[in-house]
Amino acid sequence: MSNLSHFDADGQAHMVDVSGKAITDRIATAQSWIKMTPQTLDLIKQGTAKKGDVLGIARLAGIMAAKKTSDLIPLCHPLPITKVTVDLTPDDALPGVQITATVKTSGQTGVEMEALTAASTTALTVYDMVKAVQKDMEIGGLRVTLKDGGKSGLFENP
Amino acid sequence: MSNLSHFDADGQAHMVDVSGKAITDRIATAQSWIKMTPQTLDLIKQGTAKKGDVLGIARLAGIMAAKKTSDLIPLCHPLPITKVTVDLTPDDALPGVQITATVKTSGQTGVEMEALTAASTTALTVYDMVKAVQKDMEIGGLRVTLKDGGKSGLFENP
Amino acid sequence: MSNLSHFDADGQAHMVDVSGKAITDRIATAQSWIKMTPQTLDLIKQGTAKKGDVLGIARLAGIMAAKKTSDLIPLCHPLPITKVTVDLTPDDALPGVQITATVKTSGQTGVEMEALTAASTTALTVYDMVKAVQKDMEIGGLRVTLKDGGKSGLFENP
Amino acid sequence: MSNLSHFDADGQAHMVDVSGKAITDRIATAQSWIKMTPQTLDLIKQGTAKKGDVLGIARLAGIMAAKKTSDLIPLCHPLPITKVTVDLTPDDALPGVQITATVKTSGQTGVEMEALTAASTTALTVYDMVKAVQKDMEIGGLRVTLKDGGKSGLFENP
Amino acid sequence: MSNLSHFDADGQAHMVDVSGKAITDRIATAQSWIKMTPQTLDLIKQGTAKKGDVLGIARLAGIMAAKKTSDLIPLCHPLPITKVTVDLTPDDALPGVQITATVKTSGQTGVEMEALTAASTTALTVYDMVKAVQKDMEIGGLRVTLKDGGKSGLFENP
Amino acid sequence: MSNLSHFDADGQAHMVDVSGKAITDRIATAQSWIKMTPQTLDLIKQGTAKKGDVLGIARLAGIMAAKKTSDLIPLCHPLPITKVTVDLTPDDALPGVQITATVKTSGQTGVEMEALTAASTTALTVYDMVKAVQKDMEIGGLRVTLKDGGKSGLFENP
Repeated sequence: MSNLSHFDADGQAHMVDVSGKAITDRIATAQSWIKMTPQTLDLIKQGTAKKGDVLGIARLAGIMAAKKTSDLIPLCHPLPITKVTVDLTPDDALPGVQITATVKTSGQTGVEMEALTAASTTALTVYDMVKAVQKDMEIGGLRVTLKDGGKSGLFENP
Repeated sequence: MSNLSHFDADGQAHMVDVSGKAITDRIATAQSWIKMTPQTLDLIKQGTAKKGDVLGIARLAGIMAAKKTSDLIPLCHPLPITKVTVDLTPDDALPGVQITATVKTSGQTGVEMEALTAASTTALTVYDMVKAVQKDMEIGGLRVTLKDGGKSGLFENP
Repeated sequence: MSNLSHFDADGQAHMVDVSGKAITDRIATAQSWIKMTPQTLDLIKQGTAKKGDVLGIARLAGIMAAKKTSDLIPLCHPLPITKVTVDLTPDDALPGVQITATVKTSGQTGVEMEALTAASTTALTVYDMVKAVQKDMEIGGLRVTLKDGGKSGLFENP
Repeated sequence: MSNLSHFDADGQAHMVDVSGKAITDRIATAQSWIKMTPQTLDLIKQGTAKKGDVLGIARLAGIMAAKKTSDLIPLCHPLPITKVTVDLTPDDALPGVQITATVKTSGQTGVEMEALTAASTTALTVYDMVKAVQKDMEIGGLRVTLKDGGKSGLFENP
Repeated sequence: MSNLSHFDADGQAHMVDVSGKAITDRIATAQSWIKMTPQTLDLIKQGTAKKGDVLGIARLAGIMAAKKTSDLIPLCHPLPITKVTVDLTPDDALPGVQITATVKTSGQTGVEMEALTAASTTALTVYDMVKAVQKDMEIGGLRVTLKDGGKSGLFENP
Repeated sequence: MSNLSHFDADGQAHMVDVSGKAITDRIATAQSWIKMTPQTLDLIKQGTAKKGDVLGIARLAGIMAAKKTSDLIPLCHPLPITKVTVDLTPDDALPGVQITATVKTSGQTGVEMEALTAASTTALTVYDMVKAVQKDMEIGGLRVTLKDGGKSGLFENP
């Protein structure tokens, strides 16, 4: 199991020693979507335009969740995040909402888990806000689309 | 926007008043999956059998995340959870891991957000544990499959 | 010091034993305000109407803070909150924003600390959101205006 | 809304990108007060001298709250705080307690929100500790009195 | 492994289902000690009498830690704690400080983990407060001395 | 009380100013043990080999607790931890489990409190996992065995 860095030579979990790694600027982007009926999507779009701002609340939840990543993912290092943005775009073709989260830091490990946590919590919050009208929504497409700044260089997964 | 209970008549967000609702036994189940290459799945299956227990760590992360739900989802009520189970099953056909989380409480609101948060965090932790060997894994199928015990009765979405 | 219930007979702090108290419905309301220049207030009012929703974000921060009260105030009991609302009203006469937070629970102790924490964090978040244009804003008027439901009965402080 | 840095060009909230800012030593001081009857203040003064140390407990709560600031204020960056002090001074003229909190860091953003959060939580804890004898206390005067170390230079508001 | 209730029949960890258990009044007491040189103990005893209150700060840390137990111990149920007391007694014979923590709840599971967490964190905080003068202190004797109120009845371990 | 750095000249607690200290690589190791009957230890050893992995769960709890140290110990500085390992070794002679935790950071203060918190929480989690079969287990031997990297140089306490 030597390829999985979260385990030592004996297969025991540990928080990897990153103290020898350089402090560099790092960025990661993750995406997700939440699929719903056109009627539910209409309710969300009306709210964003006027009142009952589902997308604004979900965006804030995603930003705050990025700060809790090392609390949620057992072997994640705590990181001084320097930027978080979360974009939510209603998509009539899905139909539903497309979500993109981007996180930056200046540190010794990457921020893809922070970006994934933001994208995931944003989608969960959309679910929570509109579940009174639809319970069978589905969340998917949760993946890292860009990662840069560490030793392994640029990763793109568009 | 009268259908979305997380907003008042003026469209302002609030934590809904549940003080008049009955305390009943409630249960919810949520599912998700994480898709990967057969090679990555093999690494996980070897670890579970012998050492480097990816699935055991992800299960624990999911259980602990269920307890943090009201901290992550802005308008969720804090709830005295009485049970959490998380099952992870390697699936060669996906290929990847199938995840099912079940949460119970005795309270005034449902626990579907707790089940979704557990299922989501479990999948994110699998990603974190094996991302050293594969970065383009995808998480999906995150949805509520069962909910029971409240005023709205049994909901099934198999 | 026998009048201060957070201390025992020897003057040592403790979390008061409430296990003998009845579980009753409880409510508390707290208020605060944040004072600023008319120009800063105009910026906020424009945002709320169109975009850059300062008040919506501050409201959400206040609601979430109510859930963290027992984590912030050392001798507070953890409580299953059943409702939180936070109202923010621009006030040209102040000039600034008037804040009112109301919290309900069904439990063995009151929720005035939860209401105060919500009112306080809401005001702090308004400060954070607009401090780029004005640093000498002042927060005040933070007090409990209503409390009901416990052994000591109705308290009003309008 | 280009003046409010917590919003992007479209008015959407984000955690501002500070990755390009220099790491400098930063300091901020905030003040608040809590007003009460002379009788309540006497109880507190007796306790501090002998037993039932209200001010010592409130000071500790304020110090600990400074560490939770980025958890409470949605768009605050997490910061490695290097110093927190909280001073509480009984003031017979108020009558009540004067509170001053000072926070230092070496980082890319200021610490005025940390100082305000400490000053606010300290006052709330005083309220909690003596509310058994007086419920209509009022907290006010919460403001930043000094900030230094960032690009915008020294700010004083004595 | 059928005797260890935190595992299911397949040996997978879960949070045990307590929803069928009765809500009863429960209490638990735990003890610990921290051993140090007579000189270090003298410093602590002087502080408690006059200023630099090591024991008061450690007591508060223990009380607050009891509220975080379900956040620290992976399979612990969150519980509405109704009382916490922590006693610290300087002991010249040890020499050091004897610690006793008592926790009560009205719930479906016991509070011995809460009492142990309080006793442990209290001792760790004493260590932190005086480690500038002595680094080789030792903490021990951490155990449950009393538990009552559940199905298994009274347990005493004096 | 000038020797205890957590207090100022007036004996008031504060979070010490470390902003003038150099950022250096720091390491600390702490140990503890939990004593039990040979029968309880056998249950744990069987589980680790096959299923019901008590030691794996306790290890993870210890690693996660290290990240919460500044939340638990009132005057601890928040620190960007760069490594955590926790080793658990069954010891037939005790009989019980020996625990060693090592933490590294690159910062301005030491990490002995993080190592102690990890060693302590690991032992508490072992207790929680097997308390269904034995309630009178005892935790002890909790102490710092190595600390290096700060101004005070190497400390060893084997």
